[in-house]
Amino acid sequence: MRLATVITADGRSAAAREDASGFLLLGAPDVGALLRRPDWRELAAAADGRPLAPGEVTLAPVVTEPRKILCAGLNYRDHILEMGRPLPDFPTLFTKFADTLTGAHDDIPLPAVSDRVDWEAELAVIVGSELVRAGEAEAADAVAGYAVANDVSMRDWQNRTSQWQQGKAFDRTTPLGPAMVTPDAFDPAAGARIRTRVNGRTMQDDSLADLVFTVPALLAYISTFTRLQPGDLVLTGTPGGVGAGRTPPVFLAPGDLLETEVDGIGTLRNRLVS
Amino acid sequence: MRLATVITADGRSAAAREDASGFLLLGAPDVGALLRRPDWRELAAAADGRPLAPGEVTLAPVVTEPRKILCAGLNYRDHILEMGRPLPDFPTLFTKFADTLTGAHDDIPLPAVSDRVDWEAELAVIVGSELVRAGEAEAADAVAGYAVANDVSMRDWQNRTSQWQQGKAFDRTTPLGPAMVTPDAFDPAAGARIRTRVNGRTMQDDSLADLVFTVPALLAYISTFTRLQPGDLVLTGTPGGVGAGRTPPVFLAPGDLLETEVDGIGTLRNRLVS
Repeated sequence: MRLATVITADGRSAAAREDASGFLLLGAPDVGALLRRPDWRELAAAADGRPLAPGEVTLAPVVTEPRKILCAGLNYRDHILEMGRPLPDFPTLFTKFADTLTGAHDDIPLPAVSDRVDWEAELAVIVGSELVRAGEAEAADAVAGYAVANDVSMRDWQNRTSQWQQGKAFDRTTPLGPAMVTPDAFDPAAGARIRTRVNGRTMQDDSLADLVFTVPALLAYISTFTRLQPGDLVLTGTPGGVGAGRTPPVFLAPGDLLETEVDGIGTLRNRLVS
Repeated sequence: MRLATVITADGRSAAAREDASGFLLLGAPDVGALLRRPDWRELAAAADGRPLAPGEVTLAPVVTEPRKILCAGLNYRDHILEMGRPLPDFPTLFTKFADTLTGAHDDIPLPAVSDRVDWEAELAVIVGSELVRAGEAEAADAVAGYAVANDVSMRDWQNRTSQWQQGKAFDRTTPLGPAMVTPDAFDPAAGARIRTRVNGRTMQDDSLADLVFTVPALLAYISTFTRLQPGDLVLTGTPGGVGAGRTPPVFLAPGDLLETEVDGIGTLRNRLVS
């Protein structure tokens, strides 16, 4: 099952089930609100009526108001080893705000105060039930689904101090979507490819099977110190190929087309604008 | 004016004006919700009726559901210079979650997974109006008020990776209160003292005039990358005297009484429990 948050012609936001015929609205303002209903799977599966065509809606972030967004840093085995670093014992974690998110096809504003804006394709995990000091099996069962994100990062701000947060949380710079795919239809451990293209040129291309900390491991670890709730979001890190790691470095410029995709979920297409 | 969020005998949470006679309830579930009303000052000033005595209420965090909590790292001049470091060009920022907060007199659970739990007395700033790419004058006008916080930190988790966040965001470990004091009654630039005592022994004692990045500077800087809204919270950093910096290091243990105070605002009294 694929769920999306759409904005309809009258400007309202709604959770929707996406299938071949289009988007069926589900009576909740976004997928996060839907997930707070214990019967969300039945409710989404039972939806019918006239579907809205893709051209009739705009995609919002799949979850628009997560209470928590946690992001893993270095988490792709090949990339860590090629950098000559040892595999980490613990996940590196930082955060974003709900205001950091933007839709799958929205323009991304390039901050006037940064000239080192970089890409980071990531698998996003949406939490479906509360997790408090959970083990990995419980954490796996709590996954509502998966989406694609790009943790667009202002490297100059990220590296102004030891803490990355200020370069990771510029408003409306992290596209999230295009839909949430439920675990019965998508399993990251099966090794789907994750990619970034900039103006059609492939910059990142790796396998989700290369994650050092798997999705259940990340969720269980986070739940050791803070509870996770339905609609919360975890970004799982990015593979090699970011702009700052290239020789010479490459950064995003006005007019660039940033495409981020995970096979089996979909593609984000975002234009960078001044 | 002093505003607090109290829990009444029937278990409900309410914003209240605190004066010599007690707590006058204000018809909002917490001070954060109150601040989202443009007429909050008039509404709070006009409140009357029978005040509740301190013994009739429990103190909740002054704001219970901030959408954003940003915290400054190294920000006290004396402490930075005594450590032999240069004064920083930019504030070091990290975040907490609303779930990280707890009340001014609540017990603080010592995480079973950490044996390096430390204190950090901080001046907390509560935002009263929206700030987007604001200058310092606008930021100063947007301060709703000030409170006391203790950024209780799990040093072992904080230092597991380069990013501090996982040691700073254990649920219910950051007391915030006892009240929010409005800027007409409290000015941090006047140099009030900030202190931590553990079991009666003074561990931190410094002047708020020693902040490298002032309150308006911090709010303006943050608003460059993310909007601040009424009820959001900014913690301004801690002075020297933390447990990890002592010889030998000292950490919190079950039964310890942690007192955190800012002259002119009040004192948090929290017992550490297993």
